[in-house]
Parts: sequence; structure tokens; C-alpha cells
Amino acid sequence: MNKILKGNFIFTDENRNLVIKPNAYGVCENGLCHGIFDQIPIRYLTYEVLDFDDCLIIPGLCDLHLHAPQYEVRGAGMDCELLDWLNKYIFPVERKYSNLQYAKVMYSRFVSGLLASPTSRAVIFGTIFKESTLELMKLLELSGLHTFVGKVNMDRNSPSYYMESSVATSISDTIAWLEQCNFTNTLPIITPRFVPSCSEELLHKLGELLFSYNLNVQSHLCENINEVDLVKQLHPNENSYSAIYNKYSLFGSINKSIMAHCVYCSDEEIELSKKNNVFVAHCPSANINLASGIAPIRLFLDKGVNVGLGTDIGAGHSLNLFNEMVCAIQLSKISKLKPLSIQDVFFMATRGGGSFFGKVGAFDLNFDFDALVIDDSNINLDGNFSLSQRLERLIYLSTECQLISKFVKGVRLF
Amino acid sequence: MNKILKGNFIFTDENRNLVIKPNAYGVCENGLCHGIFDQIPIRYLTYEVLDFDDCLIIPGLCDLHLHAPQYEVRGAGMDCELLDWLNKYIFPVERKYSNLQYAKVMYSRFVSGLLASPTSRAVIFGTIFKESTLELMKLLELSGLHTFVGKVNMDRNSPSYYMESSVATSISDTIAWLEQCNFTNTLPIITPRFVPSCSEELLHKLGELLFSYNLNVQSHLCENINEVDLVKQLHPNENSYSAIYNKYSLFGSINKSIMAHCVYCSDEEIELSKKNNVFVAHCPSANINLASGIAPIRLFLDKGVNVGLGTDIGAGHSLNLFNEMVCAIQLSKISKLKPLSIQDVFFMATRGGGSFFGKVGAFDLNFDFDALVIDDSNINLDGNFSLSQRLERLIYLSTECQLISKFVKGVRLF
Repeated sequence: MNKILKGNFIFTDENRNLVIKPNAYGVCENGLCHGIFDQIPIRYLTYEVLDFDDCLIIPGLCDLHLHAPQYEVRGAGMDCELLDWLNKYIFPVERKYSNLQYAKVMYSRFVSGLLASPTSRAVIFGTIFKESTLELMKLLELSGLHTFVGKVNMDRNSPSYYMESSVATSISDTIAWLEQCNFTNTLPIITPRFVPSCSEELLHKLGELLFSYNLNVQSHLCENINEVDLVKQLHPNENSYSAIYNKYSLFGSINKSIMAHCVYCSDEEIELSKKNNVFVAHCPSANINLASGIAPIRLFLDKGVNVGLGTDIGAGHSLNLFNEMVCAIQLSKISKLKPLSIQDVFFMATRGGGSFFGKVGAFDLNFDFDALVIDDSNINLDGNFSLSQRLERLIYLSTECQLISKFVKGVRLF
Repeated sequence: MNKILKGNFIFTDENRNLVIKPNAYGVCENGLCHGIFDQIPIRYLTYEVLDFDDCLIIPGLCDLHLHAPQYEVRGAGMDCELLDWLNKYIFPVERKYSNLQYAKVMYSRFVSGLLASPTSRAVIFGTIFKESTLELMKLLELSGLHTFVGKVNMDRNSPSYYMESSVATSISDTIAWLEQCNFTNTLPIITPRFVPSCSEELLHKLGELLFSYNLNVQSHLCENINEVDLVKQLHPNENSYSAIYNKYSLFGSINKSIMAHCVYCSDEEIELSKKNNVFVAHCPSANINLASGIAPIRLFLDKGVNVGLGTDIGAGHSLNLFNEMVCAIQLSKISKLKPLSIQDVFFMATRGGGSFFGKVGAFDLNFDFDALVIDDSNINLDGNFSLSQRLERLIYLSTECQLISKFVKGVRLF
């Protein structure tokens, strides 16, 4: 478990500045980072050195929001908006995961794709089916990736063929699922789909489970105007969409909460996110593919809210989080706010999202040693680019670079 | 030269509708398309059949706007806007192409990249240097791609180290270059950089060359607000940016004209584009990378203006025109106009841009036989998707598919 990686380390500090250590030695001891050094300190001289020459070494990327069953239909139906797309494309697919054999085949493809991607950690939606969600978790555990996975809860406003029949069923299935979650790196997370498809009674019971099982929660928030309107109609007396989650302790007040999208959050909701340490999963490709809009990420960052990135497979079409970094910058240039920088998006994809998992997303002392080793020589043939330029060009041209190795908490996955 | 390709043909008709011919035979005779058939007609039974099984066969893509010397710096300096970016990143690079040896090395990398990309035809900016532009053309001719290439003209408002010293020099160099252009598939095109860097006298002389040599023209138009303001300051008495090109016969009134970007064209300029049959090169990635804005492509299409796509390397970061199709759709979803569809962008990248080259961009009778053979089996493992869905998913997930063969006017390049 103890080893030293040699290469060009690039990561971010807490203030979203780049930390660049050229030609350096990164020490991994028992899965943790013991520092990045110009020369190997004497006390580590016996450790194996993996020399990655002129490669870039960056923290593994953290995907805060994606749907495993939707992987098979990514890139289809991109002419729809959210609610239509769910009904036409997504619910008919997710329903198929009641068949465990089907789920095994499809989820193994998804896990292969995620393993090959630059993602080392992810927070994942399954389906309403507990058995296939467990199957997904088994496959993820075998992959060596570190993930949170949720069995989805939904008991209203959904097609009859894809909805839990009662709060009691939804909760008893969730408990049965939780009792079978015995994995090391694959942890359960409470997963109400979103307010439109969860009754208040269900949200209430899920809040109780959060407390009794000491779990985190993930859901969707303020993605699309029609969805936000629907929530207002369903809950005319509530102050905001966020307030409904908050009422049932599902908005960061107990343990951690990830809210995907947050395109239409009010100032009060941004304040509440900050107060409750809610994590925002910014999913720019998904937001533009479904014509949802542009999330005001600059406002969240300025308020000090935790922001990570999410591919949101299948509304986002690719598992490649580098593409989300590019898309996040691009969309920010259209919004009226100050555009996001390379540092901002690199931070979000590593340290920002990583903090959901603990000390993750940087090569700071005692952080989990998650690393991607990337050969960018195809786009740096003459060696003329500085390391910060190489990072920028890796992000924009990731498909022209080679991901040659991935480490998660010190374990080499390939 | 005579052959038959078997596979699933997809292309567009003149009205931007998809034409889908599953499991069909496309006949190529002397480089031209003789039809797509369900069975091989008796008169073609002696032709060699290339059986591409369940692959997709689509027209080669046409890139209407890109800068060959900027290939080496693609994906760098993406935090700038246009005029800053030109001064900080681009002019210092283009200047290097005064060195022919340097140009040979760099242009051979560019041509390799273009050959491997889904592009079969392109309209390309070189630099102000005639020798290196000829070198670029020699390499392109060897590749088998069909292109127009321009030696750039610029005689004002440019850095002293990268500007032609006088109109006379600019024109005599251009004539010397034209006299040496003796290629079959690589044709010269008149290339004033853009109004800010070309005096009226230069534009006047270029218009004369256009006429005397019977050439087409390419330039930039209304890309960025500061650029448009600069043009207004330089030409306070002109009605519009387009009017300046038009005054010197560089706006479609003689032969064909490509104008890249057209983000800020007025209604009158759109009308003039239609009247003069000007081709708009829509470059969505470039427009968003440099924070220029979103071109109102729907308005151009509704008026019946010719629109093609351009990667605009290096403001666009990738040679992959499928990415431009995705970006064009995505940006159109943010604009207040009706979003672009898969059909719209597929048309633009094939038949729309192809019409600049002649009968190109579709498998209509007597069109040039340009074809890409694409294996999308990685994303269609169960064969569940319809051919129109497969086209959509190919466009969104092109990097997960394999481009296995490329034909240009019947010649197989790989």
C-alpha cells in the first residue's frame, strides 16, 4: 500500500488556486497522501517509486450526480425538456431494472464505463428496485471505485408502471435494501427522486431513516421551470422548493445532502444551502441538453456554498467530467455573472466535489490518495506549454490524451 | 473507381429532412453517386461491393472555417475574448510560419489530424506567408482531402511583426502564391483576415483578384461586439460590416463567399447574405469559447441563407465537427429562437456546407461520393435503437464510435 508516484502534480488549494509541483514525488502511505516533495525524503527511501516521467498527475475526479440505469440511453431524446424526457425516455428504461438479469448486464456496462473514465468517486442514482440496486453496488465494489449509491424512492405523480405502491412499501424496501448494504467502498445514500414524485409522508419517513441509519441524502432541486412550477402547485404554502426538503431534514441539517442542478434557486435558497452545508451538483451538459437553463454557480461560489460537478448521465451524454468542466466554463460565459475559470471548474471537479467524501480531491497531507496519471504528450509534442497551460489543454482536449493509471485511496485500479 | 458500399445510409434532403436507407447499396461510379438501392441493380453487378455490415454511412463532413496554423495552440487561452486572444496567443504563433521548416512540421501534424477527423472537405486559413501556405496545400493534396486554402491578407491594425508592409506587397505576394497553386483537390481562395486588419485599398485589390482569377473568398464577419465596434469606428460612413465587404465584391456578388461567425448581423445583413448567396460558417464552440455570443442561426435558416458549420480551430478547440453539431444545438437552446434540431445541424455539417464545394454533402444522384463509414456498435450493443436514434447518439457520443473508413469523391482515404 505504500508507494511513491513521480510526475507533474497539479491540484487546487482551498481558495481555488492551482498548486503546481513539477517533476515531484507524491508519497502514498496506507492510502493517504503524505506530501508532494521535490526529492524523496529519507524516511520514504524504501518505498516503491512509480515513475510516470513527464505525465500529469491530478486528483481523481468526483462525479456528484449521475443515474446508472440511464447510461444505456445517454445521448437519446435530447430534443425534450425534463418532464417530457422522463416520461418518454427515462421511466420506460428504469422500469426494466425490475429484471435482475437485465440489470446485471446493463450495470456491468455502466461500471466498465465509469472505471475507464476519469472519475474515481461518484454519487449515483439507481432505480426503485432494491435487488438491482444491490447488484449495481456489488459491481461497483468490485471495480475499486468509491461511491454512494441510492435506491430511488418515488410514490406519486409517476407512471403506474414505475412507482412504489405506498409509503409503507417504499420504506420497507428501503430498509430491506439498507440492511443488505455491506460494502466497504460502496455506501448507501437516501435518494428521494425529487419533490414532484415524493409525498410529504414519504419525505418525512426518509428523514427518519437518515437519522436512524446515519446516512447522507441526494436529490434534485430547481432544475427546470416547469418542474419548479409543479412543485409550487403541489406545495402552495411552502416558501421554496428547498424548504420542503429542509422541513424533513433532507437539506443538510442532518448529515450531508447533495442537490443536483439548482438552476432556479432563490437568494434565500442559496443562503439556506450555505447555512446547512448543502452540496450543489452542477450539471451543465444536462442543463443545456434539456434546455433547463444555466445555474448561477458564481453566486453559490461567492457565498461559499460547496459546489461539485455532475455528468448527470443520461441527461448529460458523457461520463467524461472534463467535458463538464468545459461546458461549465462555456455556459458561464453566456450568463451575466463573472465567468468560471479553469481553476474554478478544476476545483469543483476535484476538491469541491471531493469534500463530500471526506478529505478527498487534493494532494494535501493526510488526504485520501486519489490520483489520475495522464499522458498529454499527443498535445504537447514540443514540450512548449507550461504546466498550467497543459492543465487547460488537458481539460479542453481530454479525448486526445491518455488516462494511463487511476489510484483511489492508494489502490491502483489500472 | 467504381464500387458499391453496403450499410445503413443516412443523409438529408434539401428541406433538412433525414433520408434513411437501411441495409442499402450505395453505388459510386467515377467518383459520383449513382444512387442508393435496396438491391444492386443488374447494371452494377460487376462492381466491387464493400460490405460494411451494420455500420452507419453518412456524407463526409464539411468544415467551412478553420485556421491551420492555430491547430498547435487549440485549447489554450480560452479565458480571453477575440481581440486580446489574437494579440496574446494567435499572432505570435502565426508569425512563426515565416519559417518554412517550422511550417512543414506543424502543418503535417494538422493535416494528419484533419485526415483522421470526420471532415472530408474544409475551407482553411493559412498565414500571410505564401511559401508556408503552399506547403500546407501540398500536404493537403497528398492527404486526399478536398479543400480551399487561403494565404491571409492583412495590412493594418496588426502587430508590426505580423503584418504585410504595404498593399503592393500583399497583392504581389498573393499573385505569386496564386501562380504556384497547381493542385487538383486543393484550391486557392482569397482570404482577407477581416475588415479591421485590411485597408480599403487592399480590399479593393482583392476584389479585383477575385474577378481576374475567378476565385471564391472567405473572411470573418460580426464575431464579437468589440470587433464590430472597431469596424464602426474605422468605417463610420458605412451602413454595416457586410456592406464594406460588399463594396469590394467580396460578399458573394462575384463567385462564392464564406463569412465566419455572423453573431451580430443585422436584419439588413441577413437579407444581403440571402440576396448574394453568401455562406455563413457557424462556429458555435469558438463563439462560446471566446465569449463572443450566440449566432442567430435560426434566422439565417428561415431566410434561406446557406449555413455550414466550422470548427474554427483554434478558437474552437477540436477538429471534431460532431462536437460542433452538439454545441450548435446546445447554444440554440439558450437563445430565444426555436432550437436547432438534429436534422438542422446534420444538414449544416453535410449538405449545407457541402454546397460550397458543388454537389456535395448528400447521396443524391450525381453528387460527389463523399462517405464516412462509422461503427457505432459500442453504443448500440443490443441493436435496440432506430437509425434516426443511432444518428443522434453518434452525434452526441462520436468519441465512443469508430470512424472506420472515409471516401472523398469516390477515393478511399482509409
